Amino acid sequence: MSLLPVIGWIRTYDSQSFRSDAAASLVVLFITVPQVIAYAFLAGMPPETGLYAAIMALGCYALFGSSRALAVGPTAIVAMMTLEAARVFGEPGTAEFQTAVMQLTLVTGALMIVLRVVNFGSVISFLSHAVVTGFISAAAILIITNQIPLLLGISGSPDTSMKGVLTYLAEQGSSLNSLVLGISGLAVVVLLYAKLWMKSHLQKLGISATVADSLTKIAPMYVVVMGVLIVGWLAPDLASGVAVVGEIPNALPAFGFAFMGLNTLQELIPSALLIAMVVFMESTSIGTAMASKSREKIDANQELIGLGAANLGSSLVGGFPVAGSFARSIVNFSAGAVTPLASLMTAVLVVLTLLLFAAAFHDLPKGVLSAIIVVSAVQLIDLSAIGKIFRFNAADAVTFSFTFLSVLVLGVESGVLIGVVISFVLLIRSSSKPHIAVVGRVGESEHFRNVERHDVTTLSNVLALRVDESMYFVNTRYIERFLFNEIADKKEIDHVLLICTATNFIDTSGLEMLETLSENLSAIGVTLHLAEVKGPVMDKLKETGFYKNMTGQVYFTTDLAMKDLAMKDLAMKQGAKKQDSMK
Amino acid sequence: MSLLPVIGWIRTYDSQSFRSDAAASLVVLFITVPQVIAYAFLAGMPPETGLYAAIMALGCYALFGSSRALAVGPTAIVAMMTLEAARVFGEPGTAEFQTAVMQLTLVTGALMIVLRVVNFGSVISFLSHAVVTGFISAAAILIITNQIPLLLGISGSPDTSMKGVLTYLAEQGSSLNSLVLGISGLAVVVLLYAKLWMKSHLQKLGISATVADSLTKIAPMYVVVMGVLIVGWLAPDLASGVAVVGEIPNALPAFGFAFMGLNTLQELIPSALLIAMVVFMESTSIGTAMASKSREKIDANQELIGLGAANLGSSLVGGFPVAGSFARSIVNFSAGAVTPLASLMTAVLVVLTLLLFAAAFHDLPKGVLSAIIVVSAVQLIDLSAIGKIFRFNAADAVTFSFTFLSVLVLGVESGVLIGVVISFVLLIRSSSKPHIAVVGRVGESEHFRNVERHDVTTLSNVLALRVDESMYFVNTRYIERFLFNEIADKKEIDHVLLICTATNFIDTSGLEMLETLSENLSAIGVTLHLAEVKGPVMDKLKETGFYKNMTGQVYFTTDLAMKDLAMKDLAMKQGAKKQDSMK
Repeated sequence: MSLLPVIGWIRTYDSQSFRSDAAASLVVLFITVPQVIAYAFLAGMPPETGLYAAIMALGCYALFGSSRALAVGPTAIVAMMTLEAARVFGEPGTAEFQTAVMQLTLVTGALMIVLRVVNFGSVISFLSHAVVTGFISAAAILIITNQIPLLLGISGSPDTSMKGVLTYLAEQGSSLNSLVLGISGLAVVVLLYAKLWMKSHLQKLGISATVADSLTKIAPMYVVVMGVLIVGWLAPDLASGVAVVGEIPNALPAFGFAFMGLNTLQELIPSALLIAMVVFMESTSIGTAMASKSREKIDANQELIGLGAANLGSSLVGGFPVAGSFARSIVNFSAGAVTPLASLMTAVLVVLTLLLFAAAFHDLPKGVLSAIIVVSAVQLIDLSAIGKIFRFNAADAVTFSFTFLSVLVLGVESGVLIGVVISFVLLIRSSSKPHIAVVGRVGESEHFRNVERHDVTTLSNVLALRVDESMYFVNTRYIERFLFNEIADKKEIDHVLLICTATNFIDTSGLEMLETLSENLSAIGVTLHLAEVKGPVMDKLKETGFYKNMTGQVYFTTDLAMKDLAMKDLAMKQGAKKQDSMK
Repeated sequence: MSLLPVIGWIRTYDSQSFRSDAAASLVVLFITVPQVIAYAFLAGMPPETGLYAAIMALGCYALFGSSRALAVGPTAIVAMMTLEAARVFGEPGTAEFQTAVMQLTLVTGALMIVLRVVNFGSVISFLSHAVVTGFISAAAILIITNQIPLLLGISGSPDTSMKGVLTYLAEQGSSLNSLVLGISGLAVVVLLYAKLWMKSHLQKLGISATVADSLTKIAPMYVVVMGVLIVGWLAPDLASGVAVVGEIPNALPAFGFAFMGLNTLQELIPSALLIAMVVFMESTSIGTAMASKSREKIDANQELIGLGAANLGSSLVGGFPVAGSFARSIVNFSAGAVTPLASLMTAVLVVLTLLLFAAAFHDLPKGVLSAIIVVSAVQLIDLSAIGKIFRFNAADAVTFSFTFLSVLVLGVESGVLIGVVISFVLLIRSSSKPHIAVVGRVGESEHFRNVERHDVTTLSNVLALRVDESMYFVNTRYIERFLFNEIADKKEIDHVLLICTATNFIDTSGLEMLETLSENLSAIGVTLHLAEVKGPVMDKLKETGFYKNMTGQVYFTTDLAMKDLAMKDLAMKQGAKKQDSMK
């Protein structure tokens, strides 16, 4: 794939594709504008920066990204992480805070490009399903908690932690504004109605499924219009108690580079790396899901470039970190976007909105934005995924619980770090005690199975072990101890056969173990053999001379090995008899 | 195994075993006394604490340990780690330092017991061969560097870091004492001679191999006697420039419990955990090697108890952390120790030495102890192991290099931590891109092999993939992308078969991936099947209902799967023809 994937589709572009893309871009516009203004508030940034970030993200990703329908821009989780990370540098609203956000966005984008260059996109595989589910669920709860004061018409809490917000609510709860509560309550009801019932109602009215779907998905626009109309219709003295978005400059953003010193860079890197991981993870999982439905290829490396470019672009216009938005991408995809031109057109439409309709958002109540945030955050909590984690895997349940609680109590960064460490530790712990089966022959067949589970025949002088794991540093000591403990009791054993069907790789610890095994076994008169060694492992063993020095043989199959060892045993016994008779 | 393994061997104990054990204990005594006094100096502790630590370690381990010949006590690496860890609390020689060492020893012992109780001895599997080799080699170099001033007759450097010692040497180098240099040089020569040639010379004189071996191994005692005689024989004014061991109280240690506050405990835990890991690793690797040679069992859990008890014991008498000593254990084993009684007798002999001959060590030059330390440290650097790491595995070479350099530059604790993190990251990185082969049938056989390596036949409508790895969070995204990219180009495929021979386990991320795969594939008219699923994985899939909801089938073997899918294809084509003809 070339650096500019646009080259791939632009040549075959036709008017039908254009109509399809244009329709999708319009639908996406209606959901993008309310969401990105809301997420700008969530990130502690002025409303226009959400629009700026969206314009640059859509444009840059369309040029460099590999997914055709991914809609990139501000998202709730990433906005919240931005607020948490930049707050260390200054309170939201201050110049220090905005500068820190721009720098953070720049570093996030740059890190993604660096990860691509050093070919280390696999860093996102450090985030297990359990960690991600725990982190997203807890972050969603934090987001919702933080919106509660705004929904009630109390200004936002100065402390975004769970405890901070709850304390603040207890103190300020009585000062709630019932008009704001009414407006935001209405917004919540409309959004939930759209989410749950509107589509089927529209279909009953004879509207086609596709159109009904689009009309449902742009519900955020309805509540925005509703909010603006209510405030505009109210007497000015009544509306004065309602916090509104206020002035959005109807001009294009100025470009600016977020210079920073080495110290600031160092301070920002941990947060930026975590944000980059989350951006990449969210975006590629949406991208892969959509690509699979349309039998398209998705290139993880190209995604790093595309998302990195989107963040660099956002930084240049004073925006905040951006990612693939689940809601907007799905809308884009199901509304029929066939090429990234849909995203480019959405970007142009956002520019036009900014230039022509910026003033229209002046009277938009912030409570409506909070309602949009809360309703989308609720959907981030995936109860069925959580249930599955608890049913399926104890280690994952532990990881989920620790991540979830740590994020709630300590914040996103510490929480995710704790989750990653725990998932690694539990992974290593489980791999450190691999399943090892003593196997025997099933009847007269060529199949060998666990002696404890199947009715099999074994040779008294051969210990045949199948190690169900690669041999590497986390488990070599266990394998070694297992083997010696097996033969300690059985003095009649003089051959050990290691069956390596599940040994996918071997590191220096594994090699060292095999050498020690071979030596120590031979010191007590036992020979070590291998069977069914995979190609890559075999190559490694040959390279280091282990193959040459080993006392026993390497057999192609377990069957051949067992036949040969049985013959050897027979030959030895006959030899012993012969010696006896010669005495 | 009972908590007191002594119960296992005491009943069958006979006079022959006793003679064997007694002989071994005497040989071990001669190497133990010089070494433990030397390692006490290395740890920054008074000489008698080495003897105290050895007595308690030998005694406690004999009661609770599972290895019959392991000789536990002060070792070079652990002594150096102790010095590094306790130095934060006070300079060696101060009461603060000694208290910190006692507390550190207590926490180390307690942690080992805790690791046993929570069944987490596998924590040592976090130390890969590459990390251990890098850490031991660098630590040996640090130890040697730190002894250079003492060998030259300059007092020890106040800064134990590489840079500190070298700066100190540059400043103080001119003040070297040529008499000390002569004595320690002679000691080094004698020790090297014993190491390299003495055994064969003795054998040529007609001495049996076993006796020659023992005579060679106790060389440290020769240089101690030599040192004491030289200083005693010199005129007092000449000898006054030679730093000697000085007074060792000829009394048994007083017992004392190292109380500490919660803050101190918190500060000590990281160092203690690392020391516990190193103690456990060193000891079990020696123990396993010896057990394998005598067809004995080694119980890792019991080892934690035994080594934990040894450290708790050492702490009670004001000693420092102890581990299984490689040199002394080998001597014990090859001199014929058959039960832990040999260690108990060595402990008694050390007590007698302390009570009767403490005064004899007064004139022992410290340079001789440094010579003993340096010669044993040199042997810790295993060049052939290092060579193997570089030849065998690039990831291990990177881990080794980083660990080695970090330990040299930043010290043991930071160095090992960096090594562990790097080895984990590289491990996850390599597992995140597992080998996946598209397979086909070899001739008319039941074998299926990689289409890229073998001449095989495939079905045009079936994609058969063998994933050579368990399916878990580090690789699920890669597997998913690989699969969709494979079918993106091939519209004729309507069955995907995942062959799970190497899938040893599956976590929630893996389950989630299979579910998404099944759903997304079915949305584009492709059915997902599994083959050769291992028992434990199958159980998991059944538990969660995935098995029930999946669109395709689970086949016992790849052969059955391919035969069935070929039939289905045929049936479908015939069905399609029929439909055509009906039109």
